Amino acid sequence: MEVEFKALLDDLDLLEKSLFDPAPIHKLRSHVENLAALSKCNPHRRSKVKELSSEVVDSNPYSRLMALQRMGIVENYERIREFSVAIVGIGGVGSVAAEMLTRCGIGRLLLYDYDTVELANMNRLFFRPDQVGMTKTDAAVQTLAEINPDVVLESFTMNITTVQGFETFTKSLTNKSFCPSKEGSGVDLVLSCVDNYEARMAVNQACNELRQTWMESGVSEDAVSGHIQLLVPGETACFACAPPLVVASGIDERTLKREGVCAASLPTTMGVVAGLLVQNSLKFLLNFGEVSPYLGYNSLKDFFPTMQMRPNPQCSNVACLERQKEYVLAKPARDAAAKAKMEADASTAIDEGPLHDDNEWNISVVDDENEKDTTKAASSSDTLPEGLTRELPVADEYEKEIAIGSGEAEEDDLEDLKKQLEALNAA
Amino acid sequence: MEVEFKALLDDLDLLEKSLFDPAPIHKLRSHVENLAALSKCNPHRRSKVKELSSEVVDSNPYSRLMALQRMGIVENYERIREFSVAIVGIGGVGSVAAEMLTRCGIGRLLLYDYDTVELANMNRLFFRPDQVGMTKTDAAVQTLAEINPDVVLESFTMNITTVQGFETFTKSLTNKSFCPSKEGSGVDLVLSCVDNYEARMAVNQACNELRQTWMESGVSEDAVSGHIQLLVPGETACFACAPPLVVASGIDERTLKREGVCAASLPTTMGVVAGLLVQNSLKFLLNFGEVSPYLGYNSLKDFFPTMQMRPNPQCSNVACLERQKEYVLAKPARDAAAKAKMEADASTAIDEGPLHDDNEWNISVVDDENEKDTTKAASSSDTLPEGLTRELPVADEYEKEIAIGSGEAEEDDLEDLKKQLEALNAA
Repeated sequence: MEVEFKALLDDLDLLEKSLFDPAPIHKLRSHVENLAALSKCNPHRRSKVKELSSEVVDSNPYSRLMALQRMGIVENYERIREFSVAIVGIGGVGSVAAEMLTRCGIGRLLLYDYDTVELANMNRLFFRPDQVGMTKTDAAVQTLAEINPDVVLESFTMNITTVQGFETFTKSLTNKSFCPSKEGSGVDLVLSCVDNYEARMAVNQACNELRQTWMESGVSEDAVSGHIQLLVPGETACFACAPPLVVASGIDERTLKREGVCAASLPTTMGVVAGLLVQNSLKFLLNFGEVSPYLGYNSLKDFFPTMQMRPNPQCSNVACLERQKEYVLAKPARDAAAKAKMEADASTAIDEGPLHDDNEWNISVVDDENEKDTTKAASSSDTLPEGLTRELPVADEYEKEIAIGSGEAEEDDLEDLKKQLEALNAA
Repeated sequence: MEVEFKALLDDLDLLEKSLFDPAPIHKLRSHVENLAALSKCNPHRRSKVKELSSEVVDSNPYSRLMALQRMGIVENYERIREFSVAIVGIGGVGSVAAEMLTRCGIGRLLLYDYDTVELANMNRLFFRPDQVGMTKTDAAVQTLAEINPDVVLESFTMNITTVQGFETFTKSLTNKSFCPSKEGSGVDLVLSCVDNYEARMAVNQACNELRQTWMESGVSEDAVSGHIQLLVPGETACFACAPPLVVASGIDERTLKREGVCAASLPTTMGVVAGLLVQNSLKFLLNFGEVSPYLGYNSLKDFFPTMQMRPNPQCSNVACLERQKEYVLAKPARDAAAKAKMEADASTAIDEGPLHDDNEWNISVVDDENEKDTTKAASSSDTLPEGLTRELPVADEYEKEIAIGSGEAEEDDLEDLKKQLEALNAA
């Protein structure tokens, strides 16, 4: 519209010169200039903030996030501004993950995609019909910058599975200009939200090479299940350690996806998977709750399987094998550090002494180091604000009972799976 | 901007009358009219569709949803256009639920809220900073109409807990103009996405009175857990059957929320709860998978408790007691209908006879009526598109094993809870 306004103002200039009394033109011009300004800048678009405020006023976009500190969930929420997260694939899961992190006030987001927005994407959240034809990265930057101007957005419109794309990808991950003092690579977490095997293998390769922790996500072709998974090179299974259940044989996977075979998708499943993915990311970055190594979502039965996968000593990925070796070599140092921390914690506890000298109710303290984070959260819900009374036993107590009965989070052994696979192949 | 363009055109009219040669004004007017049109209509905004197409082209906004039929998940996806869903509370959960249903192509959405959009809401999905100051209903209609013009949107900017608001609410639920042939009330489902006890009790009262099935949702004040619940008047516990764990004593709950005590919230938790809520709604409306009677989400441990709650025979809600009586009285008819259906299914099976006369592999059919829906879905994932091979045993088989071990979805007896409560009160 800028061009049209310019033409209109030029016409007014011409008209003014041809008139005896230019007064009505002046009035017209001020009208037009006013309109041009209105069409350009949005009066409600908020300006950047210097610090995250915890003030409880309607005009503070961070009040409900900073409340996480006051409620004892997160120790230091403001740290979120120091973190860089890379999101590969800005589709049904990646775009929603990007929006969630943007609204949470993440420091920097790196976005990778080569695709354009189509009407066929409108059954998932985030992109709007007026963005059809734009690249997904451009459309995402447009929307995200408007939502939260405090987030540094960097977008890469390219395919990471090409030789040049892969090089740009790894280079961008190691760029430390946002936080020069950072140890390791330049980003804190990579989120893989791609829809194909090839791209997952590219992310896996880059992260194994860079010792970069990442999380993988996926949604099934029938739209009704999905998963998220944490991958720490050397420590957990990498994407190449456990072969996927289904692989393309002979045909290019992209051909399979594009030509006639149209995968189903739902905004619900993708929204849930994005939510679980970013929640796990927040727990990982801000150090609260328990970070899930793997979490599945079967929407037909509302079943959420969890498991842990150890790295495969016969993994086909060379960088993974190197990371595994490093992890084993670093074990004595890790054990020593853990022991030192335990001793330090214990001595601090002794130094501090009991808070009260008398112990009328005979209360004793039980050490439950492993459940530290969740216990902290549970105890926070025990304290009610003034004016509230509790009518039933605390929910956490009830949940604990169920949890004991259900035996969740059983660890799965890759060796067992491999044996099953071999037995099947032999049959 | 519409007002400003009108003023500009009026000024041009005046100027035209005062000039000898009106030609330059004609040119100006056409410029301005062009701009006014540009500012109003979005060139990419898509037009309404007559029928949901399953054609696999980038320009079809329903291709990925209609694929649910081809993949055997949903028998008739197009039925979604016949359904009306009412959403009470267009906040962090309700707005996302509305967007998901809109993108799924729901027939009609009724939206209820009296609040306005604030910058303090920007840490949740959906609303944009440029909508600050608008009512949530107006802002929602603006965004949703742009996303999917096929959905009929009706908004009610009012508080359903006032006497007049409650009356308008129940009246709007019984309005059958959208689908005159519908049995029962005018809507198929009510979703409660409110943030306070009073509003939940109002939804509960209306639904008990109207025999209206509804789903309740909630997110904890510390932002890290939430739940959804299905309520069928007379059949399941109503909201008044089980007292909430925490209630305001003496003070007005709204005062408690507004003054200084700011609840925490996260786009992740609210997005997950909205996703689970709409997924359960789709399963309920389109008849696939298992509709969950209750599903909790504890994000710190990624724990998802399920349970069933029977109605309380001593419920304080008179309409609930009436529905309970009706439900008991209708039991013989329900049993007879179920028996007739079973017999009909059995006789159809006999009438049809075996599909193949020879049975080389000795395959026999096992009746598993109860698991019909999930079995259907599981078997659909057994068939792979051409070009794909399976490398490991089917995921469903693996999940079945875990499911047997975990003993999920244990039914909870309200009587037991009541006894616990009485024991606590007596102590």
